Amino acid sequence: MPLERLTIIGAGLLGGSIGLAAQACGLAKRVAALVRRPESVADCQSLGIADEVTLDPAAAVGNADLVVLCTPISGMTGLAKRILPHIKPGTVLTDVGSTKRQLVAELTPLCAETGAHFVGSHPMAGSEQTGPAAARADLFDKAACVVTPTDGTNADALATVSAFWTSLGSRPVEMSPALHDRLVARCSHLPHLLASALAGSVLDSAHGKQQVQLCSTGFRDMTRLAIGSPVMWRDIVGSNREDILTAIDEFAKELGQLRRLIAGDSPEAIEAWLQHAKVMRDNWGGSVAND
Amino acid sequence: MPLERLTIIGAGLLGGSIGLAAQACGLAKRVAALVRRPESVADCQSLGIADEVTLDPAAAVGNADLVVLCTPISGMTGLAKRILPHIKPGTVLTDVGSTKRQLVAELTPLCAETGAHFVGSHPMAGSEQTGPAAARADLFDKAACVVTPTDGTNADALATVSAFWTSLGSRPVEMSPALHDRLVARCSHLPHLLASALAGSVLDSAHGKQQVQLCSTGFRDMTRLAIGSPVMWRDIVGSNREDILTAIDEFAKELGQLRRLIAGDSPEAIEAWLQHAKVMRDNWGGSVAND
Repeated sequence: MPLERLTIIGAGLLGGSIGLAAQACGLAKRVAALVRRPESVADCQSLGIADEVTLDPAAAVGNADLVVLCTPISGMTGLAKRILPHIKPGTVLTDVGSTKRQLVAELTPLCAETGAHFVGSHPMAGSEQTGPAAARADLFDKAACVVTPTDGTNADALATVSAFWTSLGSRPVEMSPALHDRLVARCSHLPHLLASALAGSVLDSAHGKQQVQLCSTGFRDMTRLAIGSPVMWRDIVGSNREDILTAIDEFAKELGQLRRLIAGDSPEAIEAWLQHAKVMRDNWGGSVAND
Repeated sequence: MPLERLTIIGAGLLGGSIGLAAQACGLAKRVAALVRRPESVADCQSLGIADEVTLDPAAAVGNADLVVLCTPISGMTGLAKRILPHIKPGTVLTDVGSTKRQLVAELTPLCAETGAHFVGSHPMAGSEQTGPAAARADLFDKAACVVTPTDGTNADALATVSAFWTSLGSRPVEMSPALHDRLVARCSHLPHLLASALAGSVLDSAHGKQQVQLCSTGFRDMTRLAIGSPVMWRDIVGSNREDILTAIDEFAKELGQLRRLIAGDSPEAIEAWLQHAKVMRDNWGGSVAND
């Protein structure tokens, strides 16, 4: 699928990595990037993220075959409204947002009005680091990438978006926006919030200086996600409230079950509970992207 | 502090790493290891964990200046009873157990009866891997090592144990057994149980095949600890029940607070909650051993 022109809207970790990966695999004759801040133009140029880096929406998206929205989710609909007037009919738009139901519902009709086709995406790759300097060409390598068609999705546009993610090295997985949001609430949003709750409660100065001295590698790994952007995660939480509440409740129920076993001093039951978790984790194997 | 003879009781990850580290830094003229299974003798010898590897308690601890108990905590008191008759008066015993109150209370009088001195230790270093093959000479490098004297602790024995851990590259931190158990319940035992609860609940097959496909690097890191030995962790939980219940309750309270903010649709409050956790984690920095 050699594209004439691929445009990235926003060149942070994800947008920047798409630019690097697309150029590395010769996916498009030209890669353009639209950025917001003047200083980002030189940054992205020196990092080799795109052939053209611009502050001008019309220059960025004119003649693009494929446009990928890579900004925080709260800004995507507003940005789409700014770029759509400059897009040629038949252009395919996708995004990298961490939640899909709300975005797909907003962007699908907006794009359709101008003759463009929207298909939601969510590459399951990332880092607690942000910004174009953290971008890497292999970020999507072997990562699952959810693609979320709906009943009205244009079949050619869906094929273009799936082929795009395959070209970048990832494995497209199709599902509805609603199922996506339910599944990522459990395996992505919940772990993030648990890391924040753990960091926020254990590192509280009320526990004394020695508490921090005893935090070791296990604690470090269990709280790494808490480093992520509070603004970005505020928006993710706001756009997936019901599913996240359900995921928190499921987790609290599991933890409550363990609490009862400990309070009841049931060594065999505690061991069986730990063994069940170990078997689940061992069988999964932790084989994910960027290993 | 060059010792004439250092004896390790049990040569798994921790015991094996002590043997390798002690030899690497010339801490003792002879390093002996007592193992339980005949096949471990050859394993430990080929890994270079000790100068002498034996199945015989008398041969292992005779003439030892310092004996380090490195078996799972549930077996330590029984093992101490088997080796103490063969120990010369004045020998210092320590251990590497993950909980201290119960062990210190049991081992201190047992050792005193035979003229030996017990001082509890807990090096804050480890891995989800087990066994002598996972041992490494630098495991304790820069790690905190809690040393837990009590009112009756022999001052020379305490100095020996602190100097021992310093020689292996770690930073001794003194505190009471009770404070140790309260602090590690929060920063070590709780994270482990959260990892197990997350793995056990999210990877449940009831959520369908696609759930597992979407688990990525964040989830992997947040569940790594669930790989640990269920038997070892059953015993840790059993020996620190009250402090672990308190730690679970503190965590559940923090998570419940977040749940109310999400249910109340309070973006500013959610952002502030996430920001607090980020600041705590950023300020700590995650600077721990074996980075």
